[in-house]
Amino acid sequence: MYRYKITLCYDGSEFYGFQVQNTGVRTVQGELNRVVNKIAEKSGQTLKVVGASRTDSGVHANGQVAHFDFPYDIPEHAMYKALNSKLPFDIVVKKVEKVADDFNSRFDTTGKRYYYRLALDEYVNPFKRKYTGHCFRKLDVSKIQEALPDLLGEHDFASFAAAGNQSKTTIRTVTKAEVIEDLANNELIFVFEGNAFLYNQIRIMVGVLIEIGLGKRPVHDIIRLLEIKDRQQARFTADGAGLYLDEIYYKKNS
Amino acid sequence: MYRYKITLCYDGSEFYGFQVQNTGVRTVQGELNRVVNKIAEKSGQTLKVVGASRTDSGVHANGQVAHFDFPYDIPEHAMYKALNSKLPFDIVVKKVEKVADDFNSRFDTTGKRYYYRLALDEYVNPFKRKYTGHCFRKLDVSKIQEALPDLLGEHDFASFAAAGNQSKTTIRTVTKAEVIEDLANNELIFVFEGNAFLYNQIRIMVGVLIEIGLGKRPVHDIIRLLEIKDRQQARFTADGAGLYLDEIYYKKNS
Repeated sequence: MYRYKITLCYDGSEFYGFQVQNTGVRTVQGELNRVVNKIAEKSGQTLKVVGASRTDSGVHANGQVAHFDFPYDIPEHAMYKALNSKLPFDIVVKKVEKVADDFNSRFDTTGKRYYYRLALDEYVNPFKRKYTGHCFRKLDVSKIQEALPDLLGEHDFASFAAAGNQSKTTIRTVTKAEVIEDLANNELIFVFEGNAFLYNQIRIMVGVLIEIGLGKRPVHDIIRLLEIKDRQQARFTADGAGLYLDEIYYKKNS
Repeated sequence: MYRYKITLCYDGSEFYGFQVQNTGVRTVQGELNRVVNKIAEKSGQTLKVVGASRTDSGVHANGQVAHFDFPYDIPEHAMYKALNSKLPFDIVVKKVEKVADDFNSRFDTTGKRYYYRLALDEYVNPFKRKYTGHCFRKLDVSKIQEALPDLLGEHDFASFAAAGNQSKTTIRTVTKAEVIEDLANNELIFVFEGNAFLYNQIRIMVGVLIEIGLGKRPVHDIIRLLEIKDRQQARFTADGAGLYLDEIYYKKNS
């Protein structure tokens, strides 16, 4: 078997998230499995694509990574063309790399980068309704900017993990937490980098930051939330439509 | 009755075009009629919204215009809020104006402006699949630029009218025909202005321009097409997903 690493981009709006579900709903992994098995049809084997990150329903990706073992030694560019010619239009493979047999897209990650687009229009821009979160009320961006550094560093993010979180520990390290004012598009772009994130962590962090910007929470409420480790205190989860898995980092040479 | 002019923006991807159809499919006009009648529910009257332009299935608008008569004298801003709070997220009203009783959004137009987004990516960008046309092969933009002035002026555009065209005459005046290279997005943006356009005219013009750019037609083939007045000669209609009704012009004071 030959192991392939693929980097992909998808519009999450018509997927029930990345991971295959036994209810048969449309998922990104389900489409990838279908296409990879179609290409290797003659081998008679059942192949499985493993993804780095289980993005939720409606969440988008510019740089999701996955890997799979393939029975034939096909050149990277031929695999790239075979995948893209068979995948539906809401998934595109950006890069195909042949990798060592022990590369694992899920367990070898050293970090991830996400961004979150928050539209500030008075009414939802029809062209953005599936591609941004929305905040109709006036935000004080300077408060958000003051709050963001509170997220940086190694913390127990238990207050920022949704109920379905299955990780052994809720300790994570956030290495970047920034907001960019995209004036041309009337949006705020939140950028987060870290070693890994808990289930719904980014969307809950954005929810808390929005409430800080609205003056509904004190500017440094994140410090309190990190201390109390209670999900009930951070209630609002920002809309998945604004979230983009932007890049996944690996050790060099993998 | 009080006449209102509204300017609206919509994502056409989930509509079967603007115009109400007796098959009950989802249309922009259908949604507008539903909402206007909902707001005026107590009057017991049946109101009808009249649109300036019958955009096709999948075609978008940044500046569609419509008008309707309303039984109550509501301030413009209140009407703006009432409409936007009830419309689905893929339509937004940008502007509401009270106008004279004889204003007609359809018949008082003096010109229209459309643009067409053509993506040049090797594979369809998932985020653009409903918002651009696509050309996978290499285009010679200089040929397109050389051909565009052939469209300018008053001509019989019979070769550029689709079968469903119901206009009395196929003579139209094109006042602007340009192409912009949007390098950041790897797109060509075609911009057209004219007094009015025939059914599918812009999409057929873009189809011909693409074929000129691909070298499948001589650079000045548009001159021949205008002369022969034969739709069979201009066969390719560019995908509606790339087309945007951008602005509609009226006489001053209307």
